[in-house]
Amino acid sequence: IRVGVPEAIYSQGKTDEDLINIINNIDFTKHLMITRLPEERFNRIKYQLNKNVLKNGTYYKEACILTINKTTPKEKKGTVGIITAGTADVPIAEEARITIEQAGYKTIPTYDVGVAGIHRLIDKITYLIDKKTDIIITIAGMEGALPSVVAGIVDIPVVAVPTSTGYGVGEKGFTALFAMLQSCAPGIATMNIDNGYGAGIYSVTILNQIEKRIKDMTEQ
Amino acid sequence: IRVGVPEAIYSQGKTDEDLINIINNIDFTKHLMITRLPEERFNRIKYQLNKNVLKNGTYYKEACILTINKTTPKEKKGTVGIITAGTADVPIAEEARITIEQAGYKTIPTYDVGVAGIHRLIDKITYLIDKKTDIIITIAGMEGALPSVVAGIVDIPVVAVPTSTGYGVGEKGFTALFAMLQSCAPGIATMNIDNGYGAGIYSVTILNQIEKRIKDMTEQ
Amino acid sequence: IRVGVPEAIYSQGKTDEDLINIINNIDFTKHLMITRLPEERFNRIKYQLNKNVLKNGTYYKEACILTINKTTPKEKKGTVGIITAGTADVPIAEEARITIEQAGYKTIPTYDVGVAGIHRLIDKITYLIDKKTDIIITIAGMEGALPSVVAGIVDIPVVAVPTSTGYGVGEKGFTALFAMLQSCAPGIATMNIDNGYGAGIYSVTILNQIEKRIKDMTEQ
Amino acid sequence: IRVGVPEAIYSQGKTDEDLINIINNIDFTKHLMITRLPEERFNRIKYQLNKNVLKNGTYYKEACILTINKTTPKEKKGTVGIITAGTADVPIAEEARITIEQAGYKTIPTYDVGVAGIHRLIDKITYLIDKKTDIIITIAGMEGALPSVVAGIVDIPVVAVPTSTGYGVGEKGFTALFAMLQSCAPGIATMNIDNGYGAGIYSVTILNQIEKRIKDMTEQ
Amino acid sequence: IRVGVPEAIYSQGKTDEDLINIINNIDFTKHLMITRLPEERFNRIKYQLNKNVLKNGTYYKEACILTINKTTPKEKKGTVGIITAGTADVPIAEEARITIEQAGYKTIPTYDVGVAGIHRLIDKITYLIDKKTDIIITIAGMEGALPSVVAGIVDIPVVAVPTSTGYGVGEKGFTALFAMLQSCAPGIATMNIDNGYGAGIYSVTILNQIEKRIKDMTEQ
Amino acid sequence: IRVGVPEAIYSQGKTDEDLINIINNIDFTKHLMITRLPEERFNRIKYQLNKNVLKNGTYYKEACILTINKTTPKEKKGTVGIITAGTADVPIAEEARITIEQAGYKTIPTYDVGVAGIHRLIDKITYLIDKKTDIIITIAGMEGALPSVVAGIVDIPVVAVPTSTGYGVGEKGFTALFAMLQSCAPGIATMNIDNGYGAGIYSVTILNQIEKRIKDMTEQ
Amino acid sequence: IRVGVPEAIYSQGKTDEDLINIINNIDFTKHLMITRLPEERFNRIKYQLNKNVLKNGTYYKEACILTINKTTPKEKKGTVGIITAGTADVPIAEEARITIEQAGYKTIPTYDVGVAGIHRLIDKITYLIDKKTDIIITIAGMEGALPSVVAGIVDIPVVAVPTSTGYGVGEKGFTALFAMLQSCAPGIATMNIDNGYGAGIYSVTILNQIEKRIKDMTEQ
Amino acid sequence: IRVGVPEAIYSQGKTDEDLINIINNIDFTKHLMITRLPEERFNRIKYQLNKNVLKNGTYYKEACILTINKTTPKEKKGTVGIITAGTADVPIAEEARITIEQAGYKTIPTYDVGVAGIHRLIDKITYLIDKKTDIIITIAGMEGALPSVVAGIVDIPVVAVPTSTGYGVGEKGFTALFAMLQSCAPGIATMNIDNGYGAGIYSVTILNQIEKRIKDMTEQ
Ligand SMILES: Nc1ncnc2c1ncn2[C@@H]1O[C@H](COP(=O)(O)O)[C@@H](O)[C@H]1O
Ligand SMILES: Nc1ncnc2c1ncn2[C@@H]1O[C@H](COP(=O)(O)O)[C@@H](O)[C@H]1O
Ligand SMILES: Nc1ncnc2c1ncn2[C@@H]1O[C@H](COP(=O)(O)O)[C@@H](O)[C@H]1O
Ligand SMILES: Nc1ncnc2c1ncn2[C@@H]1O[C@H](COP(=O)(O)O)[C@@H](O)[C@H]1O
Ligand SMILES: [Mg+2]
Ligand SMILES: [Mg+2]
Ligand SMILES: [Mg+2]
Ligand SMILES: [Mg+2]
Ligand SMILES: [Mg+2]
Ligand SMILES: [Mg+2]
Ligand SMILES: [Mg+2]
Ligand SMILES: [Mg+2]
Repeated sequence: IRVGVPEAIYSQGKTDEDLINIINNIDFTKHLMITRLPEERFNRIKYQLNKNVLKNGTYYKEACILTINKTTPKEKKGTVGIITAGTADVPIAEEARITIEQAGYKTIPTYDVGVAGIHRLIDKITYLIDKKTDIIITIAGMEGALPSVVAGIVDIPVVAVPTSTGYGVGEKGFTALFAMLQSCAPGIATMNIDNGYGAGIYSVTILNQIEKRIKDMTEQ
Repeated sequence: IRVGVPEAIYSQGKTDEDLINIINNIDFTKHLMITRLPEERFNRIKYQLNKNVLKNGTYYKEACILTINKTTPKEKKGTVGIITAGTADVPIAEEARITIEQAGYKTIPTYDVGVAGIHRLIDKITYLIDKKTDIIITIAGMEGALPSVVAGIVDIPVVAVPTSTGYGVGEKGFTALFAMLQSCAPGIATMNIDNGYGAGIYSVTILNQIEKRIKDMTEQ
Repeated sequence: IRVGVPEAIYSQGKTDEDLINIINNIDFTKHLMITRLPEERFNRIKYQLNKNVLKNGTYYKEACILTINKTTPKEKKGTVGIITAGTADVPIAEEARITIEQAGYKTIPTYDVGVAGIHRLIDKITYLIDKKTDIIITIAGMEGALPSVVAGIVDIPVVAVPTSTGYGVGEKGFTALFAMLQSCAPGIATMNIDNGYGAGIYSVTILNQIEKRIKDMTEQ
Repeated sequence: IRVGVPEAIYSQGKTDEDLINIINNIDFTKHLMITRLPEERFNRIKYQLNKNVLKNGTYYKEACILTINKTTPKEKKGTVGIITAGTADVPIAEEARITIEQAGYKTIPTYDVGVAGIHRLIDKITYLIDKKTDIIITIAGMEGALPSVVAGIVDIPVVAVPTSTGYGVGEKGFTALFAMLQSCAPGIATMNIDNGYGAGIYSVTILNQIEKRIKDMTEQ
Repeated sequence: IRVGVPEAIYSQGKTDEDLINIINNIDFTKHLMITRLPEERFNRIKYQLNKNVLKNGTYYKEACILTINKTTPKEKKGTVGIITAGTADVPIAEEARITIEQAGYKTIPTYDVGVAGIHRLIDKITYLIDKKTDIIITIAGMEGALPSVVAGIVDIPVVAVPTSTGYGVGEKGFTALFAMLQSCAPGIATMNIDNGYGAGIYSVTILNQIEKRIKDMTEQ
Repeated sequence: IRVGVPEAIYSQGKTDEDLINIINNIDFTKHLMITRLPEERFNRIKYQLNKNVLKNGTYYKEACILTINKTTPKEKKGTVGIITAGTADVPIAEEARITIEQAGYKTIPTYDVGVAGIHRLIDKITYLIDKKTDIIITIAGMEGALPSVVAGIVDIPVVAVPTSTGYGVGEKGFTALFAMLQSCAPGIATMNIDNGYGAGIYSVTILNQIEKRIKDMTEQ
Repeated sequence: IRVGVPEAIYSQGKTDEDLINIINNIDFTKHLMITRLPEERFNRIKYQLNKNVLKNGTYYKEACILTINKTTPKEKKGTVGIITAGTADVPIAEEARITIEQAGYKTIPTYDVGVAGIHRLIDKITYLIDKKTDIIITIAGMEGALPSVVAGIVDIPVVAVPTSTGYGVGEKGFTALFAMLQSCAPGIATMNIDNGYGAGIYSVTILNQIEKRIKDMTEQ
Repeated sequence: IRVGVPEAIYSQGKTDEDLINIINNIDFTKHLMITRLPEERFNRIKYQLNKNVLKNGTYYKEACILTINKTTPKEKKGTVGIITAGTADVPIAEEARITIEQAGYKTIPTYDVGVAGIHRLIDKITYLIDKKTDIIITIAGMEGALPSVVAGIVDIPVVAVPTSTGYGVGEKGFTALFAMLQSCAPGIATMNIDNGYGAGIYSVTILNQIEKRIKDMTEQ
């Protein structure tokens, strides 16, 4: 069984009925995240959830996530910087942030810092490096140029998430996706369009591996 | 009739026979450019060109252009900076450069300066602005992030040319094209993939308009 | 900092809450445009805007723009012709028009003049040239043939905006976009689909450059 | 059985062996066209063709067609104008022309008359109308604007053939195809990319129908 | 000016306000069609139309067309068969039918006769040929095989209209469109997806040409 | 381990060196097929193959298959009809045919019978049904209408293979593929473009299942 | 006429009026399925259906199917396993299940068993094989990897149905479709996106053929 | 400046002349990799390279890489497993392998282990985990299902590289790419099609980060 990453239920594509059943029947020793759950839908179903579910639950409006934690996630060492190009990218960034924090790691969110204001972007990256950030998640729609600039400056892993903001040729996020896959700066790995959760999990997987190797070493 | 821009014949898609006929029968009061004429093809057809054509001709290998000028193009005031992201973009840049110089304007070529080395790029842009550049042509393949960074810094017109360098999702230049059209920085106009000639002509059209308005004013 | 072009806030993809906050907290020495703000949405949020915002604000229904100007934009010399192929293209044209007028330049709108009525189109172009238009913005959906015909006649810069009008193979505006990028007439630069704002800003950037060079000269 | 249109064998995708067999075994009361047969291939296979095939055969280099006619096609009344935008479209135009002439109808070819030179195009169209042309075939690559302008002027059927000339976004002819399908001028029917033969056959089918109805009427 | 085809106003993409204005201000010597006007919209705007408009108006619910005729269209000789593959294709067929009948020609509608029931289809085609049909319009979504079978049997012009019925890979009608363009049976010309109006106009244009040539002949 | 289907090595994408090694080292109790091996390549590598490989080998030129059989495949009961629309589809049909025959089943090839000649096609289908064919493989490029007509007539399983013959919009076989997936006639399953081998294997899998169930029954 | 498969009426794309008419006028000796009929729509139209229709009708909510059976379908021998990757794929699976059961065959549904939990998937497949399943239908969206794993283990026919669940690059089901067509495991045939009905019919067609051959044999 | 990752020059798209110049003029304190350099090209240019370049150079034929190392890369702790689905994916795998080994880390290559042979794949993954592998690179073309299965079993970071092997719908690697981005198993990050170098660099970046954090800790 997979360990060390928060388990998640993806709400989209499930009926309310199915979703409520799944949540009410979860095994209560687990940490759990219900993702892609918009506020309106949460409000509609919340009164049908079990009491002890709600008691342990926290709803994050921007991230569209409901967490259900029997115990507080244990704090671990490791930090992820999260940069978005615009404000429309923030919900995806928040999805990544909650995912990482549920796993016990720290995040430094730095939102609305696109490449069109290059000096401000450079300042923010410098700040993240000073803070000993282990990984930077870059989230951008439109032309998706953000990870290219970031990865050109830092030498830590960059996780890139294209978003479906924008219109015309950029409408569905494919321009940003392809730009990120095609970046001329090395050290970038790319997620599906709007997949903030995936970026969070991937960061956690890397941080877990760092932790494991440190533990191996100190145990020798 | 269109004035002030160098006339061009596009070689691709014409047979050698057709091309030679067209060149040998041009009206000799004109300035003319034969574009998309690779060295190998030029060498194959050159002995079939009229003497007075060749006498007035200059072949530019990297630009794949043969110019035929009865008189030297008259020098005019106006400067275009040309930035490429990589070395593979240089032929397209040269196509733009020759086009602009044939119209009598100056160019400042600045090749192989991508966004992955952001500080070097900023230095180059600063240099161009110091030199009172009127327009910047940015040429890039791959993720096409270059014009976004440039247009975020300068407030002169930026002309963007996507190139078909790269592979995988970027193979044909569509990623770069769509990134440029979708840029979050305003002040960018985009050309067809690999259309260095178009970028040159467009720059010339703007510079001609500046000249015309200055002339209008001084004539008043 | 970018100068000489009106600053804009893009409403789409922002929540009402975010948008109201941004508008109410703007620094009041600026000229500002709120774009892509449909009438219905404007009516919904307007009572939550600060008094002095509204006092300085003008709402343009067809352009979906709210301008907030502390002072009237200073009038400058320079004229942009705006031609649309159909009536469905008018909102995009109006977005361009307001953007240009906010920067102090003149516009000559000429709407609903497609290539299927070629003689009427030629008359309109002739009129624009007679009026010493500096730039022509052409806006068209469907097959996007308008800029090809215009640029074949005039020798001033043409800015082309494809629109997402139409249905079937033309549904999202890609046919018009690709036709414009691929035009056999030189002197055309293309914007993203439906990007009237971008066409306006680009025109302003060119006109600003003309002004700057005239000023340079007269100052010598 | 289909009558009144020349039968054709499409060479592409057949091995030399297959093609030679098919040609040598045709039933010799027929008129036949072998299409998409480039000069080089014709020269390679011609010595393996039966004598009486070659004796009745004529090879058209630009059209890439070999006709094999036992008798001269009977001349009929009916005329098709063929306009191409560029010289690269000529082979497709020639494919249409030979097809129509094999059926006994007249053609008026008018090559290299694009929309960027609108006045010259209008003159050519006027000429075709004066000559009592029944149908106009328009052949164009790039942005494919030609049929829109033509169909806006004439009220006879327009047959549009997109070609795969061009590069970048227009590389395979899809821009031209979609532009033609999406034309804002009514009275256009579209063929597959590079399908000059189809345009020829379609024109013949219309002209045959005119003939048939005239015959019906005169027979009454 | 174009003659002999009914003029049309395309409702989609126009605001109610614009549409009402256009209709109320038409020059009343004309025959006019308002197309793509769904019943619900017609009911919403009809009380704002001028009395004499409504008095001369007829609304066709399935075709989504409002005709406004000062005089009854003059009956002409010429017949168009209209075959649809399914029932979902009927609205497009009706758009074509009304267009043709407004021009004074006859139609023979034959709906819901797909290629999966080949014998029934063959019977219907035979019937149309017996009735001296001049043109067959074939309308199909899904795999778009209908015109291939029809054109393989008849030798009159076939006009093919792909429709956007279907789901999955056929969702937007592109499969049907491409199948029709690519048909192995000659004598087919293709329209844009869902363009019943275009098919109608094209048929009228052909029939007008037949009429014109008959008139030429009888006048000699 | 998979049983009852001939094992295959796919040559494309392997170097000659790799391919020769694999073939020479096969375990000789097996039946084996080397697929996608064009004649020219077979001739180049054959002298480097082991003697006992070649001794047991048969090369099928049209199918581009080399079979290596220690023993003759055992004959089984079950018949597959194979219909192609054109001659260019024959190599794909042959790939299917050899695959099926290697498994010991019978085939009835019926090549070059497209939907444009509907009566001839109906005759061929009737013949196959008379012969107690269990499955029909239909192979077609272009508009891919063949399986729709076939499946509308028969009630046995139809396996459809799109081919990459054709040009323009049909160039890579996607039109045929999508048409087959989208067929309005039920009872069709589709293979990848040009995947004759897959169609063969799928037919064998069905026939094996028939055999298995008959055996189950007779053993009871 | 097609025999042995349940006849179906496809609701989507038909107006309520049309649908009610069709249902009320069916010939009552038949078994019939009304597919793609969501619960809400069924509730809206049910009071307009004839009494004897409703009396013989059963509505399946998840499958969105209304069956109308004069007699209970006769039970036949033959079993189809149905595996879905996720819960969002269940409606498509149910559409297949009802279709198969209407034809009298057995099904074994096994839902929500994706490749990410490989051991659980292997257990389920083993179970299906133990139960002498004749065919496995695999239904998956997202990356569509399910049939590759299943077909690698079993040697019975696998029918693959891609679904349009997912988002970003997988939004419309094309990734799953192409993955299934392209599977490296042989023995898979693919249906259109979301075509559960087609998978059901295809399975029935295979099982009917098994039955027919067994009957042939026992009758000898 | 970026540290800890081998610098690379990408040969494709550069002329021989340019490439030789770049190589001969490198600063010789560096480790360097020349990538995408096929054997044939290496043989053509090698005699024009400086002696001391060649002396320090090693050519890797399958990886198409020439390394130039002044000193042997220093061995570091950290291991990357590399799994390919087929043999055609091996060159991409080798590109990743050399890149990682140049940085001083260990690799465990495990080639030709696709999902169609699931038990063998599970064994290989188990082996890699036993060997304390830190990262697994999965390389696959066709349907790209490999990373989904791998990431479902392991809890270390998985790097996925789609390859352009295959044909038909999988021809250019987009199916594999989209499948990987869309995987239902979390913990996967994706590279551009055929980007083995990128996968190598990304793995090195992660391993460097592990090393850095271990060093931080031991230094405290
Ligand atoms: N109507 C518009 N169309 C396209 N881009 C726009 C538009 N309005 C504003 N923008 C761009 O969006 C930027 C503002 O984005 P934001 O910070 O999200 O408000 C501006 O700097 C413009 O470049
Ligand atoms: N139903 C229709 N489908 C496609 N094109 C149409 C339709 N109705 C009208 N049109 C075209 O649209 C033009 C009128 O557009 P508009 O001036 O925007 O009303 C007409 O001249 C026709 O060419
Ligand atoms: N002609 C073919 N077309 C498609 N797939 C094939 C073909 N021949 C072999 N295959 C598949 O490719 C696999 C062999 O691949 P390989 O191990 O690379 O030789 C076989 O198991 C088949 O599934
Ligand atoms: N759920 C379904 N999915 C796909 N095709 C269907 C479905 N239901 C019915 N069909 C097909 O649609 C045909 C009926 O179409 P119609 O005559 O429009 O009701 C049937 O013969 C089936 O081939
Ligand atoms: Mg970096
Ligand atoms: Mg700028
Ligand atoms: Mg011009
Ligand atoms: Mg016309
Ligand atoms: Mg025909
Ligand atoms: Mg059938
Ligand atoms: Mg199998
Ligand atoms: Mg995992």
